[in-house]
Amino acid sequence: MSDRSPNYSGPRALSFQAPQGDLAVLTGSGNPMLSQAIANELGVRLTPCTAQVFSEGNVFVRILENVRGKDAFIIQGVHNPVNDNFMELLFWIDALKRASAQQVTAVIPFFSYAKGDKKDEPRVSIRARVCADALEAAGADRVLTMDLHSPQIQGFFSIPVDHLYARQVVSEHIKSLKIPDLVVCSPDIGFAKDASAYANLLHVPVVIGNKQRKDHSESAEVLEVIGQVDGKNVLMVDDFTTTAGSLCSMAELLKSRGANDVYAAVSHGVLSKGAGPRIAESVIKKMFITDTIETPADPLPDKVQVISVSKLFAQAIRSIHDRTSVSMLFPDTKPVD
Amino acid sequence: MSDRSPNYSGPRALSFQAPQGDLAVLTGSGNPMLSQAIANELGVRLTPCTAQVFSEGNVFVRILENVRGKDAFIIQGVHNPVNDNFMELLFWIDALKRASAQQVTAVIPFFSYAKGDKKDEPRVSIRARVCADALEAAGADRVLTMDLHSPQIQGFFSIPVDHLYARQVVSEHIKSLKIPDLVVCSPDIGFAKDASAYANLLHVPVVIGNKQRKDHSESAEVLEVIGQVDGKNVLMVDDFTTTAGSLCSMAELLKSRGANDVYAAVSHGVLSKGAGPRIAESVIKKMFITDTIETPADPLPDKVQVISVSKLFAQAIRSIHDRTSVSMLFPDTKPVD
Amino acid sequence: MSDRSPNYSGPRALSFQAPQGDLAVLTGSGNPMLSQAIANELGVRLTPCTAQVFSEGNVFVRILENVRGKDAFIIQGVHNPVNDNFMELLFWIDALKRASAQQVTAVIPFFSYAKGDKKDEPRVSIRARVCADALEAAGADRVLTMDLHSPQIQGFFSIPVDHLYARQVVSEHIKSLKIPDLVVCSPDIGFAKDASAYANLLHVPVVIGNKQRKDHSESAEVLEVIGQVDGKNVLMVDDFTTTAGSLCSMAELLKSRGANDVYAAVSHGVLSKGAGPRIAESVIKKMFITDTIETPADPLPDKVQVISVSKLFAQAIRSIHDRTSVSMLFPDTKPVD
Amino acid sequence: MSDRSPNYSGPRALSFQAPQGDLAVLTGSGNPMLSQAIANELGVRLTPCTAQVFSEGNVFVRILENVRGKDAFIIQGVHNPVNDNFMELLFWIDALKRASAQQVTAVIPFFSYAKGDKKDEPRVSIRARVCADALEAAGADRVLTMDLHSPQIQGFFSIPVDHLYARQVVSEHIKSLKIPDLVVCSPDIGFAKDASAYANLLHVPVVIGNKQRKDHSESAEVLEVIGQVDGKNVLMVDDFTTTAGSLCSMAELLKSRGANDVYAAVSHGVLSKGAGPRIAESVIKKMFITDTIETPADPLPDKVQVISVSKLFAQAIRSIHDRTSVSMLFPDTKPVD
Amino acid sequence: MSDRSPNYSGPRALSFQAPQGDLAVLTGSGNPMLSQAIANELGVRLTPCTAQVFSEGNVFVRILENVRGKDAFIIQGVHNPVNDNFMELLFWIDALKRASAQQVTAVIPFFSYAKGDKKDEPRVSIRARVCADALEAAGADRVLTMDLHSPQIQGFFSIPVDHLYARQVVSEHIKSLKIPDLVVCSPDIGFAKDASAYANLLHVPVVIGNKQRKDHSESAEVLEVIGQVDGKNVLMVDDFTTTAGSLCSMAELLKSRGANDVYAAVSHGVLSKGAGPRIAESVIKKMFITDTIETPADPLPDKVQVISVSKLFAQAIRSIHDRTSVSMLFPDTKPVD
Amino acid sequence: MSDRSPNYSGPRALSFQAPQGDLAVLTGSGNPMLSQAIANELGVRLTPCTAQVFSEGNVFVRILENVRGKDAFIIQGVHNPVNDNFMELLFWIDALKRASAQQVTAVIPFFSYAKGDKKDEPRVSIRARVCADALEAAGADRVLTMDLHSPQIQGFFSIPVDHLYARQVVSEHIKSLKIPDLVVCSPDIGFAKDASAYANLLHVPVVIGNKQRKDHSESAEVLEVIGQVDGKNVLMVDDFTTTAGSLCSMAELLKSRGANDVYAAVSHGVLSKGAGPRIAESVIKKMFITDTIETPADPLPDKVQVISVSKLFAQAIRSIHDRTSVSMLFPDTKPVD
Repeated sequence: MSDRSPNYSGPRALSFQAPQGDLAVLTGSGNPMLSQAIANELGVRLTPCTAQVFSEGNVFVRILENVRGKDAFIIQGVHNPVNDNFMELLFWIDALKRASAQQVTAVIPFFSYAKGDKKDEPRVSIRARVCADALEAAGADRVLTMDLHSPQIQGFFSIPVDHLYARQVVSEHIKSLKIPDLVVCSPDIGFAKDASAYANLLHVPVVIGNKQRKDHSESAEVLEVIGQVDGKNVLMVDDFTTTAGSLCSMAELLKSRGANDVYAAVSHGVLSKGAGPRIAESVIKKMFITDTIETPADPLPDKVQVISVSKLFAQAIRSIHDRTSVSMLFPDTKPVD
Repeated sequence: MSDRSPNYSGPRALSFQAPQGDLAVLTGSGNPMLSQAIANELGVRLTPCTAQVFSEGNVFVRILENVRGKDAFIIQGVHNPVNDNFMELLFWIDALKRASAQQVTAVIPFFSYAKGDKKDEPRVSIRARVCADALEAAGADRVLTMDLHSPQIQGFFSIPVDHLYARQVVSEHIKSLKIPDLVVCSPDIGFAKDASAYANLLHVPVVIGNKQRKDHSESAEVLEVIGQVDGKNVLMVDDFTTTAGSLCSMAELLKSRGANDVYAAVSHGVLSKGAGPRIAESVIKKMFITDTIETPADPLPDKVQVISVSKLFAQAIRSIHDRTSVSMLFPDTKPVD
Repeated sequence: MSDRSPNYSGPRALSFQAPQGDLAVLTGSGNPMLSQAIANELGVRLTPCTAQVFSEGNVFVRILENVRGKDAFIIQGVHNPVNDNFMELLFWIDALKRASAQQVTAVIPFFSYAKGDKKDEPRVSIRARVCADALEAAGADRVLTMDLHSPQIQGFFSIPVDHLYARQVVSEHIKSLKIPDLVVCSPDIGFAKDASAYANLLHVPVVIGNKQRKDHSESAEVLEVIGQVDGKNVLMVDDFTTTAGSLCSMAELLKSRGANDVYAAVSHGVLSKGAGPRIAESVIKKMFITDTIETPADPLPDKVQVISVSKLFAQAIRSIHDRTSVSMLFPDTKPVD
Repeated sequence: MSDRSPNYSGPRALSFQAPQGDLAVLTGSGNPMLSQAIANELGVRLTPCTAQVFSEGNVFVRILENVRGKDAFIIQGVHNPVNDNFMELLFWIDALKRASAQQVTAVIPFFSYAKGDKKDEPRVSIRARVCADALEAAGADRVLTMDLHSPQIQGFFSIPVDHLYARQVVSEHIKSLKIPDLVVCSPDIGFAKDASAYANLLHVPVVIGNKQRKDHSESAEVLEVIGQVDGKNVLMVDDFTTTAGSLCSMAELLKSRGANDVYAAVSHGVLSKGAGPRIAESVIKKMFITDTIETPADPLPDKVQVISVSKLFAQAIRSIHDRTSVSMLFPDTKPVD
Repeated sequence: MSDRSPNYSGPRALSFQAPQGDLAVLTGSGNPMLSQAIANELGVRLTPCTAQVFSEGNVFVRILENVRGKDAFIIQGVHNPVNDNFMELLFWIDALKRASAQQVTAVIPFFSYAKGDKKDEPRVSIRARVCADALEAAGADRVLTMDLHSPQIQGFFSIPVDHLYARQVVSEHIKSLKIPDLVVCSPDIGFAKDASAYANLLHVPVVIGNKQRKDHSESAEVLEVIGQVDGKNVLMVDDFTTTAGSLCSMAELLKSRGANDVYAAVSHGVLSKGAGPRIAESVIKKMFITDTIETPADPLPDKVQVISVSKLFAQAIRSIHDRTSVSMLFPDTKPVD
Repeated sequence: MSDRSPNYSGPRALSFQAPQGDLAVLTGSGNPMLSQAIANELGVRLTPCTAQVFSEGNVFVRILENVRGKDAFIIQGVHNPVNDNFMELLFWIDALKRASAQQVTAVIPFFSYAKGDKKDEPRVSIRARVCADALEAAGADRVLTMDLHSPQIQGFFSIPVDHLYARQVVSEHIKSLKIPDLVVCSPDIGFAKDASAYANLLHVPVVIGNKQRKDHSESAEVLEVIGQVDGKNVLMVDDFTTTAGSLCSMAELLKSRGANDVYAAVSHGVLSKGAGPRIAESVIKKMFITDTIETPADPLPDKVQVISVSKLFAQAIRSIHDRTSVSMLFPDTKPVD
C-alpha cells in the first residue's frame, strides 16, 4: 500500500456551515409511537399530516401545514403490512417534493425488503433494488435506516444512506447485565460477521450455527454449532426474527450442547402471529428487541424486553440537519473526528 | 389550418415485419381467471410462475421456466389489495428483465391509483405518476390497460401505453338489448365526456349529474341532473364504482325526475363490502360490469351481469406481439387502416 | 375510509425558513408587458437580458447581469409563435442553469401545447409530455402556469408545477357586475367540470354544450345544450379560444333556446386573425379575457375587456420565493392554513 | 505508444446479421423533395403521414399507416423556420416511439442549432446540447446528419450519430471541372481545419481568412488572408452561408490580392432574403451548394449550382438498415474494411 | 407463507426464440489468453481490435471489423493495472455502442473494485457502485462476471448481471483428489457463508477463522479458529488473495491446532509481488487458482495449480447468446428446468 | 437579426446572495503542489484526506474531516497516470456526495481525455464523453478546468463547466518580454483558431502550420507554413505537448523559412520521457508552460519556464463560491459586468 497523499498545512478553514431549511419531522402510519419519541428527543412538534385508506384500497396522504423550504424527515417503516407501508412512504416523499420541501429524508426504522438483496435463484427479483429505485424515482434525497440485512444495500442507492446499528444501544444494555462466561451466537452463517462485531463490542467469543449436508443426499441438512458452548451463557443475536422458530430451535441445540442460560437480542422484532407464545414457551431466558416495529401480532411475553432506539434516531436526524458528523453510524470503528 | 405535408408516390414498402421473441403470458396473483381466459383466447399456455407472501409480509415472485428472449406479458391488475398487487407487479417486471426477457408488457386490467392523477389540494401526491415512475424504474417496456380514470395518464409514462375501452364490448351488449327511449347519464360532471362518447356509440342523448352550490354557504351542495330524463330509460355509465352509493343515489334522483327503468354500466366493478347488497336493494334494474376484478367482497347480486373483456385483451396482446395495428384502442374514431 | 393517522402534540417547530438566493425575474420576448406588470407588483427590476433571432432563423439568448446563486423566474409564454417561444424558453433555462442560478422557475402564462395531452387517435404524439420532458432536460426546477387544458398535465412533470386559475380573478369581476338570473355554460362537454367549478364560485347553475350523433350515420353531429337557458343570462366559460367560432355559434344557439344576454369569459385570448371581427359581429354582449397573451392578430373589439392576472402571478412568485403557502393555487378548496 | 493488443486466430465468425424491422422512411414538412429523392434511391415508398399547423400555432403530426416494429427514418431538417422544424421533429419521434416503431433515426440534413455549440460568452445557452437532450428525451435512437458546425457535436449525444460530409460529393464535382492552379480558401480561421481536409481531397494548398487586431484599440479588426493567392484560382469552402456577405467580401479581398477566378462551395445554402442577389452581383464566378435546404428566400441566381446529396443519404440509410459498414462517413480516412 | 399462485393448464407455448445478432467476441488487453480459450470453446474467431496506450497515458481502442447489429461480448477483467483495465473497458463499451452493436455484454472475469462494496468507515466511496454506474453510463447492456466479493453487487446494476462461481469447477477437481477427513476453512468470518456453500458441495464440515478482541483494549485482536481441525485435512477457500499473507498465517494456525495437510482454493489469484515466494515457503501443501488473471507478478510456484474457467465462461456466453437457461449460475440450488 | 427584447426599467433588485456551505478545498494525489498554492491564494487550509493504492491495484480514498453541507472543490488533474488519476477523481466525488457535501466541484487542471472528443475514425469511442458521463454519474455538480482540447467539450456535460484559458496569464508574461516583430504560429491547423485568439491578445499576426498532400499518393503529407515568417520572431502556441516532437520540427521549419528567434508557449506541459532533452537540444529559444502538471518525466531544461496558474484557479474558485461573475473565463471578450 503506497500513500499518494500530500501533507497539509496552512490556515484553518472557517467552521460555520451553510444554513438550511427548518426541521420538519413527519410520521406516516407505520411508526407513530417511535416518531413521537424521536420528536420528543429532538424537542420539536410533529408536522400535522394524515394518511387514509379508501374503500377501494388506495392509500392517500396529505400534509396539513406549509413545508416549503423545510428540511423534511418522514418516518415510515416498511414492516407488516409491508406493501401498504412502502406505497404510503412513496406518496409521502412525492407529496413533500411537490410541496417544495428543501430536502426529503426517508427514515425507515425497519426495511423488510432489504432481505431481498440478491439473486440466488434463477428468475427472481432483486426486490431491495426495485424498492431503492422506486424511492429515488419518487424523489427521496437521502435515507436513514437501521440494521439492513446486508450493508451492501447502501450501494443500491445513488443517494446517501445513513445506516444505524441497534447493537450500539443493545450492547450497552447487555453489558450492564454483567452476564458471566458469555458467548455470542450467530443463529446462521449468514449473520456470522455481524455476530462477530457484536462479540467484539462485548469482548467475548463468537460461535456460529450452520446447516450442513452430512452425506451425499442433496436435501438432508442438519443444524450444527461451530465452536464451544459447554458451560457458557449464550447470547444469540440476529437482525430480525419473524416466527422466532429458528431462534427457539437454536436455543434447544445450545442447551443440548451444554449451554447454561440462553438469551437473544434481535434488532427488529417482526414477530408474526404465534411468535410470542413460541418465545414464551421456549428455553430462551430473555429476549431483547427494539421499538422499530410497534405492532406485534400477539401481546409481547414478559421475557421480551423492548429497548428504544428513539434517541439514536434523534441524534442521527439532528446530525444530518445540523451537518455535524454522525459518528454513531460506525460503532465498530474508532472515532475519527 | 395549413397542410405542411408532401404528396406520396413511388414503390410500396415491403410488408414483412421484424421477428421477435416467442410470446410468454404470465399471471400474477391478481387476475388468475381473466389471465386464463386471455391465454385460452390466444391459444397459449400460461408460463408457470409463483407468487408467495411470507409471514413477515414480503411478497416473493419466481418464474419457473426459461424466458430469455421472450416477448413477455405479465397480467396483474392493481385492485384491492391495491398495494400488494402493485408491489407484486413491480417484482414481476424486475424478475422478467433480470431473466432477460426481450420485452416486458405490464398488463393492468384495472389500475386503481389512476384516480390519483392530479393535485387538486395542497401538499398531496400525484400518485398515478409515482406509480408510473416506479413501473418504468422497474423496467417495464410498455403498458396495456383499460379505462384509466383520465386519458392523460398515458402521458405520465414515457413508454408506450395501449389503452382499451370497455365500452367497446359493453355498448355492443347494450345495443343487443334494444332498450327504447334510452338516455345515457353521467353520474358526475367529471365523467361527462366519456358518457357522451358512450352516448354517441349508442346514438342517444346524454344527461349529466352535478353537485351544485345553491347559495352562499360554502359547503351545501345538492345533486342535480342537467338535461331531460322524464319518460326515458336511463343508462348510467362510469369507469368504476366502489360502494355503488353514488350510482344508487343517482338512480333515485333519476326516478324522482320521471325516469322509467334505470340501468348502470361500469367498467371496473370494485364493489367493496356492502356494495352488493346496496345494489340489490336499489332501484337500479340491471348493472353491467366486466371481469377486470374477480374478487368481489360480497357475492354478486343477480341483477349484476359480468361481461368478459378477455377477448379484447387477447386481441390487443396479439396485435402488440404481431405488430399489427391495434384499432380497437380507438373505438370512437373511424378506422384508418 | 379508515384513518391511519396518529395524533400530534408536543412543542412547536421553529418557524424560520432556509434563506435562498435573491429573486431574479427575467422576461423572454413573449410577455414583456405582463412581465413588467408582475415586476412592478413585486417591486423588483427585471434582470436585463436579450433575445435575438438571426437571419438563419436561430434564436439566441443572453443574460446581461450576474445571476449566480439567484432564485430565477423566467417569464415566457408558449403562445403564437408557439415554437419560437418554446425554443426560446428552453434556451433561457439552459443559460440560467449554466450561469449557476440557484433555482430556475419557468413561468408560462399560457402553454399552448397543453392541448396535446392525450393520444386519442392512432400514431400521434402526446405533445405536452414531449414539451415537459424537454423543459426538464433543459434544467427547469419548477413551473408556474395558468389554466392548463387539463390538470393532469401537472403529472407530466416530475418537477413541481404550480397551477393558477384565472377564474379566481375573473369570477370576482363577474360577481361585481351583479348579473341577474345567471347560468354558466360550458361550450363543450370536455370543459364541463371546469365550468361547474366556475358556476360553484358564482353560486349559479351550469349548462353544457355537446355534439350528439342523432342517428346511425357516423358523421352527422349536431350541437345541443344540455340544461335550461330560457329566460336566463348566460356566461360561457372556456380555457382558451382561437377563432372564437365555437363561442359565437354557441351564443347563437343559446339565444335560439331563449337566453337573454350572453357573455363569455375566456382565460387565454389566443384570438387568431379574424377572431376579433367575428366577436364584434356576434351576439355575445361582452367577453372577458386576461393578459396572458399580449399580441392579438387584430385590434381587440370594444366588447372585449382584458383583466390582468399580473397580481396573481406576482403573489405566486412571491410565495414560491418566500416559501409561504400558495393558497391561491386552489381556489375551489377551502383554505387550509 | 505501446500496443496492448493480442493476436487473433481461429475459426471465423458467421457473417449473417440479426434481422430487423422493415424499413420505413417518412418525411416531415422540411425536406419533401430531398426525402422523395432519397426514397427513390432506396426504391421504397414514403410512409404516408401529415403535419399540420393549427391556427393557434401548434404543430400536429400524424402517421397514416401502421409502423409497429419498423425501422423508421424520419427526414426533417432543422433549417428556417428553425423552431417550427425542430418541434415538428420532436413530435415525429414521439409519435413513432408511441406507435411502437422498433428504432427511430432522426435524419437531419441541416441542423442549424449546431452553430450554438459552445459557451464563448457569459450567460448564454449551449443550444446544440439543449437540442440534443430534447431529441433524446423525445425518444430518438440515432441521428444521421451532414456537416455539423463542429464534429464534437457527436459527443453531445449519448446515442450514435452518423455524420456525413458534403465534401465527399462536392469535391468529386470540383475535380471534374479540372480548374488549374487551384487553392482552397477558408473564409475564417474557425473553418480552417475543414478547409484543409477539402484541400487534401483535391491535392491543392489551403489559405485562410482571418480577422486580426492591428493595434491596441480593442475593437478594430481587419480581414486578412494568410497564405498566397496571387495568380491562383481560389475555391472558398464553408459549411453554410446565410447572407453570403462574408463570402462576397472574402472574394473581393482575394481578387485584390491577385486571385484569378473565385469559386465557392458551401454545404448548406441557407440563403436568407437578399443573399441571392448579393451572390449574383458579387465577383464570385460560381457557387456550389447542396439540396439539404430546398426553400431559398429568393430564386437562386444562375451562378449557383445545386449538387444533390440524396444518394449519399440513401447509402447511409441503407447501411444503417442493413447493418453494413458506413465507410462514406469518413471521407478523409483510408478505408478500413 | 401463503401461495398466491393460480394453477396452469392449456396448450404449451411454442419453443422457438427471437433471432438476434451474430455473436462477436472481443478481447481487451486484460485477458488475451483466457479470451482465446473461450473463443476456442465457442468455436468462433475473436473479432479483430486494438488497444493502445499513447505517450501521454491515454488509452485508445479501435474495433477493426464491422459489428453493426452484432451480439457483442467484450472480455476485459478489472485486475492490476486495475484503473487502466477499467477505463479501457469503458471505452470498448462506448465504441461498440456507437458502432451500433445490438447488445454489449461486459465480460469481467475478475472485478477488483467489487471489494469496495460498502461504506464501513465515514467519508469513503462505495467504489463498486461508482464503477457500476460508469459501466451503465458507457452503455453496457449486461455483465457476466465471476465470484464477486458479495452477491449483493448484482443489485448495484440496473442491467442484468450473470454471476458465475469458480467453486463449480474447482470443487469438482477437489473431489477428484479424494482427500480424506476434509474440512473446509474460511480464513475470515466475512467469507464464512461462501465457505459453507463450498463445504456443502463437498459434503464436509466448515470451520471459520476470526479475529477476536480478547479484553478491553480496543485494538488487540487475535486470530482464532472457530470449530475443530485436530487430525483433519483442511481446505482453505477464498474469493481472492493478493499477498497470500492471511492464508499463510491461517495455515500456520491450523497446523498449530493439529491439522494435517492444509490446502487452499482461491478463485482469483491476484498474487502481487512477493506472494509467489511466500506461498512456496508456507506450510500450504497445494494451492488451486483459476485463469481469471494471467499476469502474476512472480512466476507461479510449483505448488500452485491453475484450473481453467474458460469452459464455464464459454457455456455462459453461449447460453446468453442462444437464450437458453444458464443453470450453471446457481451451483448451490437444485436445477429447476 | 431582429431584436425580440423588451426595455427594462423600475426598481433595482437587491444585491445580496444566498448563503452557502463553507468552502472546503481538497487535493487528490495528482496536483498537491498546485493545490497548496491555490489554497494559499484563497487563504484556506486544505481539508485533510488520503488516497492510497493497495497491492491489488485498487485506489482507496478517505476524507478525514466532516464535510457535511460544505461547498467542496476537489482538485485532481487527469494527467499521467491518466487512468489512476481519473478513477481517483470519481471516488473523491462519490465520497464527497455520500458524505453530504452541499456541492462538489471537480477541479481538473488538465483533462487528458479531452483529446478524444470526436469520432473521426470508424468504431472508436468518444472518450471525453465517456469521462463526462462517468463524472456526472459519480455525482459531480460542476467542473472547473483549463484549456480543453476543444471548447465544445463543455457541451458534453449537462452540469456547468467553467473553462479557464492559460493564455490569459501567459500572454501577460509574453507582453512583458517586449519581443519585437512577433508572429504567433499555430503548429497545426486544428489549433489555428486558438492561435489567432492568442495573436489578437498580443496584437500581432498569426501563421499556421499545416500538413498537405502534395500529389495523388494518398499518404505523402508534408508540413508547410501558411503565412510569412521571414525576419520575424515567432511564438508557437499549443494547448499541450507530450513529446515536443512537433514543436521542435515546426521550429526547424520556421528557421528554414527565415524566422529569427522561435519561442513556444504551451498550456499543459505533459512532457513524456525524452521530451525534456529534445527541447533542450532544439532550436527553440525558450518555452513557457504552466504548473497544471507537476510530475515531468525528466528534469525540466533551463530553457523551460513554468508560469503558475494557481492565482487564476483561486480566483475562479472564489468567484464560484461567492457567486460573483467569473469574467476571467472569457479573456477574448470585452468585459460585460
